[in-house]
Amino acid sequence: MSHTARIERTLEAAVALAHAKDAAPGLAAAIRYAVFPGGARVRPQLCLAVSSACGGACADLADAAAASIELLHCASLVHDDLPCFDDADLRRGKPTVHTKFGVPLALLAGDALIVMAFELLGRAGADHPAALPSLLTTIARGVGAPYGIVAGQAWECEASAPMAAYHQAKTGALFVAATTAGALAAGADPAPWRGLGEGLGAAYQVADDLLDALGDSEESGKTAGRDQAMQRPSAVTSFGVQGAVALLESHLDQAAASIPECEGAKALRETVRVQATRLVPKQLSRTAA
Amino acid sequence: MSHTARIERTLEAAVALAHAKDAAPGLAAAIRYAVFPGGARVRPQLCLAVSSACGGACADLADAAAASIELLHCASLVHDDLPCFDDADLRRGKPTVHTKFGVPLALLAGDALIVMAFELLGRAGADHPAALPSLLTTIARGVGAPYGIVAGQAWECEASAPMAAYHQAKTGALFVAATTAGALAAGADPAPWRGLGEGLGAAYQVADDLLDALGDSEESGKTAGRDQAMQRPSAVTSFGVQGAVALLESHLDQAAASIPECEGAKALRETVRVQATRLVPKQLSRTAA
Repeated sequence: MSHTARIERTLEAAVALAHAKDAAPGLAAAIRYAVFPGGARVRPQLCLAVSSACGGACADLADAAAASIELLHCASLVHDDLPCFDDADLRRGKPTVHTKFGVPLALLAGDALIVMAFELLGRAGADHPAALPSLLTTIARGVGAPYGIVAGQAWECEASAPMAAYHQAKTGALFVAATTAGALAAGADPAPWRGLGEGLGAAYQVADDLLDALGDSEESGKTAGRDQAMQRPSAVTSFGVQGAVALLESHLDQAAASIPECEGAKALRETVRVQATRLVPKQLSRTAA
Repeated sequence: MSHTARIERTLEAAVALAHAKDAAPGLAAAIRYAVFPGGARVRPQLCLAVSSACGGACADLADAAAASIELLHCASLVHDDLPCFDDADLRRGKPTVHTKFGVPLALLAGDALIVMAFELLGRAGADHPAALPSLLTTIARGVGAPYGIVAGQAWECEASAPMAAYHQAKTGALFVAATTAGALAAGADPAPWRGLGEGLGAAYQVADDLLDALGDSEESGKTAGRDQAMQRPSAVTSFGVQGAVALLESHLDQAAASIPECEGAKALRETVRVQATRLVPKQLSRTAA
């Protein structure tokens, strides 16, 4: 079964549990809407790619880790899009959750998705109890305070934010969780896999800054121009468009170079190369080629 | 060490981790403000009381379970108080988190508290891996969709809500999580402990309806009169004040009667009796005596 099929199947099973016959219907619908159809599922793909590169043992645990990380990512999108933050109308090319279901249900759907992510880990961990504690804390650290994506969003509430810390928390932390959780699920040492998560997370954040600055809502599937409007630190503001593209490529090179020797290293470097082609906004792809 | 001291020590250690030197300061402050000073810590007290009644093995795991449940409760208070729900100014006798820190940080503090709760379980679970999966899923079910406290809050977004399902999810679910998690942490069968959680949760919800209807913000430490203003199902609306008091007492009797035979059963029945005295609003205590 392909990684994509494994991810969608695990997400579907998790979301289905929220759709009990006597569940509050609005919440169940908002949860499903926030998760399907998905975007590129970049983080869970990365998690499974690392798990496979490490030998692919305990595939069901890797699936749960990957889907858990995607649920947490979806939760962060739902909350970040709310009027008190980005006030965004569009996400993945369709109305945002609060636009469709209202602010109260969007807030609760985000909360429920966070809980669902950890419940999913707990269920899969029943067959792999020895691996569960480190997997759980690794993923939680990528999300919570002081260095996870929630903390990244909190930097936007400060009068000023150090760009590196802000970007590492806002984007890098969950990429690092994805690579290290993939290794942990397969029974491998997570430490050598931090660099890949850090490099890809940094590249992804620069790509996001570029898409936002270039104002291409169609390509990004979300409302563009928010970084400047919100006066957020951005690689484009700091280094210009060409400088940001160069930075993106340097992060990707660093990510590829960091991949430790293992049986799946070659395939994984190819995955990073494919990511690289996707990350550079289309209108710049000739410059970046 | 008293149960109270164990709870506060575990909460303090968890919250301290969010206060890293280079953490986003507003988020760290909002998290601390949401947790300290606490209320009666009813749910973690109940969790530790059951754990002790079951023999008290693995006290560190019981502490983590108890504190995790309190963190999840605090998160729900922060989110429920937001303008899109209760729009409450007061909680535990002081300004609500969003009144003090603004809506964005209140939203993020709630998210971070949910994640912190599960991270805390994961850290404690490292020494007790066999117990972690069931403990984690038990607590998650008390919070998430379809039957946890998030789902309880989601019923308020529906045009109408079945009172039993609404109250069971909104309040009962986390009380059941507290009793069953206490048993699980001590290595006991959780099933016989559901009744205690259900009975106390139901009693607590009726007491909350009474306090809200009687309009005593001073005693409850939060803005009163919200049930009627929000047209929420309430035991007082359905049965009147005297009917609600009788219902509260019947739930407490049921809770005490459900306590299974075990070495700590007698002490636990005494705890429930003390709770009973506290739950009936002061101005009704002569009626209820």
